[in-house]
Amino acid sequence: MNHPLLRRADVDFLLFDWLDLDSLFEQEKFTDHNRETIGAVFDLSERLAAEVFMPHYKVSDSIEPYLDADGVHVLPAIGDALRQYAQLGLFSASFSTDLGGFGLPYAVTATSYAWFAAANASTAAYIMLTVANARLISTFGSPAQIETFALPQIEGRWFGTMCLSEPQAGSNLGDVQTRAARDGEDEMGARYRLTGNKMWISGGDQDISENIVHLVLAKVPDAEGKLPTGTSGISLFIVPRAMPDGSRNDVAVAGLNHKMGYRGTSNCLLNFGENGGAIGWLVGSEGEGLRQMFMMMNEARISVGFGAAALAYRGYQHALAYAKDRGQGRTRPDGPQTPIIEHADVRRMLVAQKCYAEGALALCMYCARLVDEDKDAESAALLALLTPVAKTWSSEFGLAANDLAIQVHGGYGYTRDFDVEQLYRDNRLNPIHEGTTGIQGMDLLGRKILRGDKGLDVLRDRIASTIASARDITELNVMAMQIRASWREIETAIQAVGKRPGRRALDDATPFLFAFGHAVMGWLWLDLAVAASRALPQLSGDARNVAKGKILSCRYFYSYELMKITAWLTPVNDDCDILNTSIYSL
Amino acid sequence: MNHPLLRRADVDFLLFDWLDLDSLFEQEKFTDHNRETIGAVFDLSERLAAEVFMPHYKVSDSIEPYLDADGVHVLPAIGDALRQYAQLGLFSASFSTDLGGFGLPYAVTATSYAWFAAANASTAAYIMLTVANARLISTFGSPAQIETFALPQIEGRWFGTMCLSEPQAGSNLGDVQTRAARDGEDEMGARYRLTGNKMWISGGDQDISENIVHLVLAKVPDAEGKLPTGTSGISLFIVPRAMPDGSRNDVAVAGLNHKMGYRGTSNCLLNFGENGGAIGWLVGSEGEGLRQMFMMMNEARISVGFGAAALAYRGYQHALAYAKDRGQGRTRPDGPQTPIIEHADVRRMLVAQKCYAEGALALCMYCARLVDEDKDAESAALLALLTPVAKTWSSEFGLAANDLAIQVHGGYGYTRDFDVEQLYRDNRLNPIHEGTTGIQGMDLLGRKILRGDKGLDVLRDRIASTIASARDITELNVMAMQIRASWREIETAIQAVGKRPGRRALDDATPFLFAFGHAVMGWLWLDLAVAASRALPQLSGDARNVAKGKILSCRYFYSYELMKITAWLTPVNDDCDILNTSIYSL
Repeated sequence: MNHPLLRRADVDFLLFDWLDLDSLFEQEKFTDHNRETIGAVFDLSERLAAEVFMPHYKVSDSIEPYLDADGVHVLPAIGDALRQYAQLGLFSASFSTDLGGFGLPYAVTATSYAWFAAANASTAAYIMLTVANARLISTFGSPAQIETFALPQIEGRWFGTMCLSEPQAGSNLGDVQTRAARDGEDEMGARYRLTGNKMWISGGDQDISENIVHLVLAKVPDAEGKLPTGTSGISLFIVPRAMPDGSRNDVAVAGLNHKMGYRGTSNCLLNFGENGGAIGWLVGSEGEGLRQMFMMMNEARISVGFGAAALAYRGYQHALAYAKDRGQGRTRPDGPQTPIIEHADVRRMLVAQKCYAEGALALCMYCARLVDEDKDAESAALLALLTPVAKTWSSEFGLAANDLAIQVHGGYGYTRDFDVEQLYRDNRLNPIHEGTTGIQGMDLLGRKILRGDKGLDVLRDRIASTIASARDITELNVMAMQIRASWREIETAIQAVGKRPGRRALDDATPFLFAFGHAVMGWLWLDLAVAASRALPQLSGDARNVAKGKILSCRYFYSYELMKITAWLTPVNDDCDILNTSIYSL
Repeated sequence: MNHPLLRRADVDFLLFDWLDLDSLFEQEKFTDHNRETIGAVFDLSERLAAEVFMPHYKVSDSIEPYLDADGVHVLPAIGDALRQYAQLGLFSASFSTDLGGFGLPYAVTATSYAWFAAANASTAAYIMLTVANARLISTFGSPAQIETFALPQIEGRWFGTMCLSEPQAGSNLGDVQTRAARDGEDEMGARYRLTGNKMWISGGDQDISENIVHLVLAKVPDAEGKLPTGTSGISLFIVPRAMPDGSRNDVAVAGLNHKMGYRGTSNCLLNFGENGGAIGWLVGSEGEGLRQMFMMMNEARISVGFGAAALAYRGYQHALAYAKDRGQGRTRPDGPQTPIIEHADVRRMLVAQKCYAEGALALCMYCARLVDEDKDAESAALLALLTPVAKTWSSEFGLAANDLAIQVHGGYGYTRDFDVEQLYRDNRLNPIHEGTTGIQGMDLLGRKILRGDKGLDVLRDRIASTIASARDITELNVMAMQIRASWREIETAIQAVGKRPGRRALDDATPFLFAFGHAVMGWLWLDLAVAASRALPQLSGDARNVAKGKILSCRYFYSYELMKITAWLTPVNDDCDILNTSIYSL
């Protein structure tokens, strides 16, 4: 297919030549699948994304959702696209067969999702939210809750939301003030009345699904009506827009947020319980809300990474095509115009985008592949360590790739006539939602490294193994030495921050995350180059081009990117403590 | 005044404590001025920017210029603001008294402009274009041309444009196809008929000035009707929208470009000569167009730097105020909410913005001060060297500052309810127009350094002088050693690229520009810290705070930024030649 979305030969290389997806089919839960069934899912995804999701990309940016007395109205083309997605059964793809799903590996469904995110990020967002919601209910909910609230989402008839933030509580969920007062029991379980305001609710209201299932974090007051402090008192509730009998629940849209990008996804301030309390049912037990939500959150963070990678990937394809087509400058005054791809600086911007976009996609796929490992402790620990990296590296460098895609287009890239400016605006959300870059840095350094989790040990082993393989390949052995040196720098920095007093250990968590992210990507690029070198003799045609491209991209990364690690680690090691001076009051 | 624009005490520190503006008043052309007259200009600028330009910032983004049969219509508030600016005589501020101006130093008028650019970049753009146009005509035009076309612009009644690019000729002006056929002579000089299309014309049409003066680059065909190749055949023409007698000239708006930001500035595709040829008068002689335009272009590039710095500066002020006000997280679960400025990562993002915004403003002011030096050869050479740096560093790191301003605001920063997302969209233009970052890199390395211009010698002397001063100040002497080492790296890289074959010398001109820019900023931050250390004993109040802030910002730059130079120079030194591989066809 001719489209600027994910390149199929690249996806095939990553999944089959690199991540050995074939070995997954030996797991009992995946025995129904093989290369052919997965190829069919990808064929379908690619075509639907290009033919149905991509055509309304521009219009869903310019005609935003609006609110009237009936609620929020969304561009009908978004609803049409999602109905086709549902009719093909794709909402159910990652669910087990007993829930009516295809039981596909996460590595496959996440990749399928990336085609849709590349084609239309804001239309695809409804998919991600709905699937995550249904997964949470089907994991922690009662059979009746699953039957009533998860299945219609798995069928794609109802859509879901995640109601975490409040106007006064964004990154810190301990400050949640929404209250849930016990209101008896029915066939759905313990029933509550919820009152409170929820902010930044994507898909919080819309007119393109039959119903909306809100998953709401709230606190249950004690006998004196006082809410528990901190995060341990948070519980999770299912609050449908329309009740199972069709009557309207007490959930109102207080306003729409008007965003820089991602405009097709409605984003709402919701008021719960303005008229006596919205009815909600507890999921699991009281006080388990944050733990439940975080099980979903890790998947959501990898999905954000996939989305950011997909936007970067599409931007790169647009820029590459433009650079081959657009003439500017001549080698001789009377010679023909040169396509701008002949100019070194344009080539630098293109290969940087390739490296950021393909690298981010590879990183996210690596994480998705870990999800599919039979939840062994090693894979789980490594996944926990890499999740903040997959989320942040893809978001930050995916955005950097989109910035370069604009720059390749020159003035045209700054206009809304070309897609690259919208890709850039859309991607700017990704370093913010599902935990900002700053939050991810603290998660990585504070929770995943300084507490001595064994994810780092697993990572060390895998890097050592990649280095051992690369050492035997002539054109890669210098890079094997370079990545070993970079990882020594990371280890030194971990020692240095470990010696800082108390909370100061995390002061430079973000520069550390950037350094760590580049070190992870350095390892993965080398690992990709090893896989490509090994596969090359068997490959031909486009698959061969992809593999050769991986080896050259790896060289670019080691020549232009790897040494940034040293710069980011300098403040981490030096602890100059400028951040704790009086500079802000001067 | 309480506003988020330039901080007056900072401006005063830069101009008087650092750049010794007082010594300028000894130059004969500036003897009418002193601290008081300049203070009055700044008072006026600050107030008009905050009270008249800033209030329509949002609305000029959401209600874009539109085109109908009468031409382009612009938000009336933009016209109102510019009329007030004109009534106060500010269009004339930088012109000599014999042209009806105030004869103010450029360092003063450029600073005044920065307040307006911070308040409303797209309204201020009409000022920059008009002043640059009038300056060009008053420098190269005949007395009749000056009288007819420059003076109404100096009065602010007519506005000006620069018509360089064409749809097929952006960065490469040698490809200009607009033709000018000789059509006699009149009191305005040699008259021509112009035909052709001009793209990206800011202010190309509007309904807020009495007339529009286009300055158009075009080529005069030879006897066979053939246009000269390359840039040497380019000439400059004055083409008014309405003729001096009030009749309409043959200039038509073919379309409006719809941009990501800077939306209040209309941006047009203009068709010249659809009905027989637009009448234009030659400025100077044929073939001098590019030289004339480039004299203006250097000033325009520094103005872009000022604009980018101003947007970054305002974004920082918004983020600082937000961070002090917004609560999120608690140090104890039952304690009060902490303002987010207490969080280390927020503090890091704030001090980075301060360093980028205040650093960019200082760099541009340093260049503006060089413009005012009586055009001695040393200052001119240094100015030529620093112009691509002032343009690019301010644009790239000003945008980075605006990115961080959004991040400090979290989800709110991504909405159009807050100003920071618009500042970011506005600033994204600056690395593109008036020569992209890639073009500036080639200018710096190719034209200003590798040809052996003496600007680099002047810079070396000035850096040595700063280092000598810093060595005597206890808290700065380590940084004096660091910047010396960084400059040694720059010198080594210059040697390395000089040895590359032919055009390959410029392959890594952009990474070199980034490294060079940070080395220049490292020098300037140290120079600012020296000036601040010396001035501190005499300062009190806000002036004292500003000076202390400069010393701490300098420390931040040396702790978090300076070492990036090494990373950017690595590919410059290593010449791995990845850019010339087949990667783009794979």
